[in-house]
Amino acid sequence: MINPEAINIEDEKWMSLAIELAQNGLYTTHPNPRVGCVIVKDDQVVGQGFHFRAGEPHAEVHALKDAGEQAKGATAYVTLEPCSHFGRTPPCCDALIKAGVSRVVAAMTDPNPEVAGRGLQRIEEAGISVVSGILEDEARDLNPGFLKRMETGLPYVRVKQAMSLDGRTAMASGESKWITGPAARSDVQRLRAMSDAIITGVGSILHDDSSLTLREDELGLAKELAAEAIQHQPLRVVLDSQLSIPEMAKILSLPGETIIVCSDQADQTKKDRLEKAGVTVWTQTTDKRIQLVALLKRLAAERSINEVLVEAGAQLSTGFLEEKLVDECWTYIAPKLMGADARPLVTLPLERMNQAIALTFEEVSPVGEDLRIISKPAV
Amino acid sequence: MINPEAINIEDEKWMSLAIELAQNGLYTTHPNPRVGCVIVKDDQVVGQGFHFRAGEPHAEVHALKDAGEQAKGATAYVTLEPCSHFGRTPPCCDALIKAGVSRVVAAMTDPNPEVAGRGLQRIEEAGISVVSGILEDEARDLNPGFLKRMETGLPYVRVKQAMSLDGRTAMASGESKWITGPAARSDVQRLRAMSDAIITGVGSILHDDSSLTLREDELGLAKELAAEAIQHQPLRVVLDSQLSIPEMAKILSLPGETIIVCSDQADQTKKDRLEKAGVTVWTQTTDKRIQLVALLKRLAAERSINEVLVEAGAQLSTGFLEEKLVDECWTYIAPKLMGADARPLVTLPLERMNQAIALTFEEVSPVGEDLRIISKPAV
Repeated sequence: MINPEAINIEDEKWMSLAIELAQNGLYTTHPNPRVGCVIVKDDQVVGQGFHFRAGEPHAEVHALKDAGEQAKGATAYVTLEPCSHFGRTPPCCDALIKAGVSRVVAAMTDPNPEVAGRGLQRIEEAGISVVSGILEDEARDLNPGFLKRMETGLPYVRVKQAMSLDGRTAMASGESKWITGPAARSDVQRLRAMSDAIITGVGSILHDDSSLTLREDELGLAKELAAEAIQHQPLRVVLDSQLSIPEMAKILSLPGETIIVCSDQADQTKKDRLEKAGVTVWTQTTDKRIQLVALLKRLAAERSINEVLVEAGAQLSTGFLEEKLVDECWTYIAPKLMGADARPLVTLPLERMNQAIALTFEEVSPVGEDLRIISKPAV
Repeated sequence: MINPEAINIEDEKWMSLAIELAQNGLYTTHPNPRVGCVIVKDDQVVGQGFHFRAGEPHAEVHALKDAGEQAKGATAYVTLEPCSHFGRTPPCCDALIKAGVSRVVAAMTDPNPEVAGRGLQRIEEAGISVVSGILEDEARDLNPGFLKRMETGLPYVRVKQAMSLDGRTAMASGESKWITGPAARSDVQRLRAMSDAIITGVGSILHDDSSLTLREDELGLAKELAAEAIQHQPLRVVLDSQLSIPEMAKILSLPGETIIVCSDQADQTKKDRLEKAGVTVWTQTTDKRIQLVALLKRLAAERSINEVLVEAGAQLSTGFLEEKLVDECWTYIAPKLMGADARPLVTLPLERMNQAIALTFEEVSPVGEDLRIISKPAV
């Protein structure tokens, strides 16, 4: 299906534009992937579109509408293979065929088993020239969670932590407000907005009565986008094996849904009370610690969760790391030294240097007066 | 003396070049400042020079020699006020006057009490137009130690530490080789080479038998420069109040000088033995801990030490920080997590967040697979 001769610099140029368009859906497409589309004719963009919200038209439909009659004989650039199935909207491959485009360039095929090559195949069978694999890596980066979920059944997991330069997340007393400055806190708001679910431990609720919500005025986004983003509050997941969450906890009454995950040995009457009050409670057959892999799989399967953010204390964050469930660590570093009595970033009782968890640094950015380091566990 | 009309973009351009030239002396001018000079005539560079080694000609003399007859009527750009006193070489202001330059532009006056404006004054009195203050901040950055010593009697202090992302410098056992990779270790070699003295605690000697020397093949410098740099081994200073250093310690027999600093209550016969073996021992009247301010003042006064590097464990590094003696922290971060049992970056027994030592991040650079963060204690 790939025709190497047809791959050229022009194709990459238009695909970059389609990728840029796709980024408009960064905070809003869940559970769908972020997709962008550009229609090009005689070296001119005649139509562009992106997917914004599940249930609404896909990128291709927006772009074709934008192009109108000009779509005939044009090339369509899409960051993901056009869908071939009826979901909440009709298949995009049919729309492209019907519009009379003469060539379709996709950055990558869709690993969704309902598509998986069939979209491009249908287009090719209609006599339209098809190319796939242009800027595939960049296109994959748009949807790390959707792709991982489709390919492995697990969501993409980011662990976010804020610490001092000497690796401390709170004073011994638990005092931790505010380690980082307002720019970093706003950055975390956008990180939450990118995520479909936020996992925390009950400790954060007991200690800080944390809310884990998106706050419109702290997102640092354009007004309309911020207003839309807060309509997509990430699912909040509290790991609470013993069901010790206070029934008055703020997190239970805020906009968006909260799931409490507990052991089947937790207090059943409290569970009933919580459920009666409208809280979702998931039970695991476990004696003590919640099983993280099982939880992640259930979130992917039942809630189509693509991207998970772990915002938790050292112990739970370390748990995800030890079980090799982490795809990215987002570490915010504040310019201060808190000292050796303060709380550690990770627990990890290691004895030898060769047991250390190896990472690779992917990106370092100044965020206000703080730094943000994105790293990935080494494979 | 400053003539604002004469300050223009051209002056800054040539001064930048002079600053670049001065950087050639980064590893070799001690105890003198790094200085560069450019001679410009009719918008052309006709001569350039920099100071390379104490006892050898200053930047101006090299540049004038390079310019020859062309110096007549030219403008001389110097990164530091030309000297007016006989040191190991004759005064540069006289050389400039004799060469017949028509204008002298200095980045800054020399705080050295033997110069302190007299150099530019002599030049002006000879009927030569004089400007000072062009790119002064950049020129000051060439010589933070020389300037601090001249202005305050204290050297400029850098604390270097290597840690994991979670702020750990060694495993609980003391195992610390190698946290960072070869690129960071080579970077530390250059940091040592910039320094006039390295301070460590006897703990590093007892535990690692550390040498703290420059190693020609690890400096990552051009061959000739590396060969010259190792001729300027930084003075090694070991804080050892109880004189517990083994007489066979490697550091005592390596090229360059080692000073042991002990309390007057330390074993006098061991002190005598060390001195007989050619080791310099400094004694402080102190019951236990070495007084850091007194030590730094003595290093500046008796050894003309401009730039000090502290390469020590958490306790001594923290001591310098607590006494507000640190100008820069150089923190190398390795992409790994070593866990909460491992050793901390700083000790600092603090209880409240508002007691934390505040820093500002000045610079972040990737160094091989590691990161280097330069921060300064906030004032």
